[in-house]
Amino acid sequence: MSATAESGDDQIVADLSAVVGADHLLTGDRIGPDYRHDEGLTGEPVVPRFVAQPRTPEQVAALLSAATDAGLPVTARGSGTGLSGAARPCPDGLLISFERMNAVLEVDPDNQVAVVQPGVTLAQLDEATAATDLAYTVFPGELSASLGGTVGTNAGGMRAVKYGVTRNNVLGLQAALPNGQLIRTGGKVSKLSTGYDLTQLIIGSEGTLALATEITVRLHPRLAYAATLLVPFPDLDAVMRAVPAVVRSGVDPNILEYIDALTLAALTYSEGLSLGIDETIRERAQAYLVVGVESRDRDRLDGDVTLLAELLDGLGSLDLYVLEGNSARSLIAAREKAFWSAKAANADDVIDTVVPRAQMPEFFTRTRELAQSVGAGVVGCGHAGDGNVHLAVFCPDDDTRHRLLHDIFASAMDLGGAISGEHGIGRAKMRHFLDLEDPAKIELMRQIKRSFDPAGILGPGVLIG
Amino acid sequence: MSATAESGDDQIVADLSAVVGADHLLTGDRIGPDYRHDEGLTGEPVVPRFVAQPRTPEQVAALLSAATDAGLPVTARGSGTGLSGAARPCPDGLLISFERMNAVLEVDPDNQVAVVQPGVTLAQLDEATAATDLAYTVFPGELSASLGGTVGTNAGGMRAVKYGVTRNNVLGLQAALPNGQLIRTGGKVSKLSTGYDLTQLIIGSEGTLALATEITVRLHPRLAYAATLLVPFPDLDAVMRAVPAVVRSGVDPNILEYIDALTLAALTYSEGLSLGIDETIRERAQAYLVVGVESRDRDRLDGDVTLLAELLDGLGSLDLYVLEGNSARSLIAAREKAFWSAKAANADDVIDTVVPRAQMPEFFTRTRELAQSVGAGVVGCGHAGDGNVHLAVFCPDDDTRHRLLHDIFASAMDLGGAISGEHGIGRAKMRHFLDLEDPAKIELMRQIKRSFDPAGILGPGVLIG
Repeated sequence: MSATAESGDDQIVADLSAVVGADHLLTGDRIGPDYRHDEGLTGEPVVPRFVAQPRTPEQVAALLSAATDAGLPVTARGSGTGLSGAARPCPDGLLISFERMNAVLEVDPDNQVAVVQPGVTLAQLDEATAATDLAYTVFPGELSASLGGTVGTNAGGMRAVKYGVTRNNVLGLQAALPNGQLIRTGGKVSKLSTGYDLTQLIIGSEGTLALATEITVRLHPRLAYAATLLVPFPDLDAVMRAVPAVVRSGVDPNILEYIDALTLAALTYSEGLSLGIDETIRERAQAYLVVGVESRDRDRLDGDVTLLAELLDGLGSLDLYVLEGNSARSLIAAREKAFWSAKAANADDVIDTVVPRAQMPEFFTRTRELAQSVGAGVVGCGHAGDGNVHLAVFCPDDDTRHRLLHDIFASAMDLGGAISGEHGIGRAKMRHFLDLEDPAKIELMRQIKRSFDPAGILGPGVLIG
Repeated sequence: MSATAESGDDQIVADLSAVVGADHLLTGDRIGPDYRHDEGLTGEPVVPRFVAQPRTPEQVAALLSAATDAGLPVTARGSGTGLSGAARPCPDGLLISFERMNAVLEVDPDNQVAVVQPGVTLAQLDEATAATDLAYTVFPGELSASLGGTVGTNAGGMRAVKYGVTRNNVLGLQAALPNGQLIRTGGKVSKLSTGYDLTQLIIGSEGTLALATEITVRLHPRLAYAATLLVPFPDLDAVMRAVPAVVRSGVDPNILEYIDALTLAALTYSEGLSLGIDETIRERAQAYLVVGVESRDRDRLDGDVTLLAELLDGLGSLDLYVLEGNSARSLIAAREKAFWSAKAANADDVIDTVVPRAQMPEFFTRTRELAQSVGAGVVGCGHAGDGNVHLAVFCPDDDTRHRLLHDIFASAMDLGGAISGEHGIGRAKMRHFLDLEDPAKIELMRQIKRSFDPAGILGPGVLIG
């Protein structure tokens, strides 16, 4: 390293240390392995130049201001559970880790909101709200995810079919801008028509516009009774045909998932699950529907289960298992671990393409054909009620897989869908996004990005490059 | 008019006529009175220089491109039912009227969406979806409102307490940019994590960023059974204390309104309503709660009504009237006409401030004090479940009223709320918005505006000036 770079480094270290304190500005060997990656299956770990662990919104703002002055790339990191590489740092950059901003600031039952710092995990918020009989209903599978991270990716998960995704459940933010200003957007109100919706713009921007330093989320009543239906079907298309019918039934399921037979076998094997599926049924079932229903009233729950059983019987289900208590929880927990199961099976990538729910059968047909044509395997499960298809892709050759993913994404977009329903674009899917998205929209997004971040410090190499 | 201006005029007329045809480019006397105003109570009618009536998205885009080239201010107009002056034209500008883009393009029951042109009215969409037993659930009172207008203001209305506002129910747009490009955002999917959410950015931007040329909206099942509860309380604070309890009860009301006694008297008088309220109760009731519940099942509806009756009795209600059928419809229709009733009573302005729902009592206390201190009157009703307070303001002196509104809005913001919950800022509240909003956010909004509209043609004088 040249003397100039060295002294430049010294100055930046001094500036950043002045903000967070020397103990919380990590360099060199003090940067542990966790800071180098997220959970995405592609891309290599990267050691950042600095890791800062701010404690307050003002410190986050001051870090961004210093980074803007120094032209230092900045990557935000919550719990590092993302799947798209958005939290993977730049080798010459600053990683801002929100682990010390982990306080639940307020649970307000009358307004049915909670106010949290971005490093709070979903598990922590669930615990903090339990006593009020209210819950934050965004459950993207990984409960160690941070709220800040879920805002960045607009996380979804299984309950989204009833309660919506992060975007629908975050009412307000405090956010630090690259110029060092702190702004407040939205608040404890569920409707606003007072200027451009900066809350919605920041949600899903994957750390490229502004960094959330405080998050106000909507809470929903916890309902006392719940049941989970596991419904085998002869094939995936039959499952997909059942999905719109369940949505239209008025039962308002809080879970509506599909799992293909191979994936269910892998999940039950890896989790040691016994679901009591009859052997002859299992042999005939190529795919399963999982329907969750919940109610504040036991009789209503039973009525909903009966209605669904009749509906699904008429739609060609092979059988129906009503799971409650532990076995229901185990199935849902296993489904939430589908990513880990794909990883354990050495999947080469995972995707979470979204299409209109009624176009899922056509999407599966096209995807199977595309995969077969290059000798690749695609298996999976997904949020059927939302048209959000999670596929583990087995195709070790990087170039072939890149072309296959390009074609699968293009096919989804042709059917009215998009590359990602909830994982985000990050670094992992950026090339595909830039190749496939309308250039007029990319240009607009780049202009918006410049409005927030003229120096281009936030998340270089993420989303729009 | 100078010869240069004249010939410049000729050129612009030729350019705009080439896009929409001479029959649909109105100038001079051909510009009828409807094009000169919206329904806001303040501000004078303005005759625009041109009115264009495009038929296709491409024509809208070409109009914007021509306007950008000519530096011509552009105002978008749906049905002209807005209350903030956003559709009031510029005297030197082009008014784009969407009356000929009024086709329901598709009702897709399997994806539970409809695709409409922006000139479609809410009444027309309600009729078009009826046969599918699905409905678009945004009902901002005025059913002659156009879908394009509701996107512009992020319209809300009574059902928002259950179904959310426009923002929560518009899944995708086609929009024309000021540079003449057409983009598509979102689609028939309820979740996306694929780039900045341009759909959400355009919604609520009051025609200042881009003009929607096609709108994809979410539909919900129509539920067969409904009842409306009219519940008198001794005072407004008691009503407000009941609101969070109803929201938390799990009954999930689709309507949760408050009406003060004076407003209910005005509504029942002007609409000739007979609600069967006992005389002795009417004398004691200072305010009313209106709760709507609905269900696909008759018994469940009855159960919900019973639960609410017990709950509200415990919270100090004076009585409870369960309205069904015609009397329920009449009450709701009368409530929806509250604005017209305020107008008929010669209110000087109407506001639709929003605060966190639990802060409504404090907001009312402060507002009463502010009004009394200047001898003004404020009465009203509002979407209590959403903290959205609609007040008719009686204060004829413009300067006094401006100061009063400033203080009321500042008080709402101090309580965590905002100037407008659903009417928008438009021209009517722009001065207040620019005075009271964080300058850092205003600057960010102006930068975003420049990203879409570098020539500044869209909606000059609206929202951010």
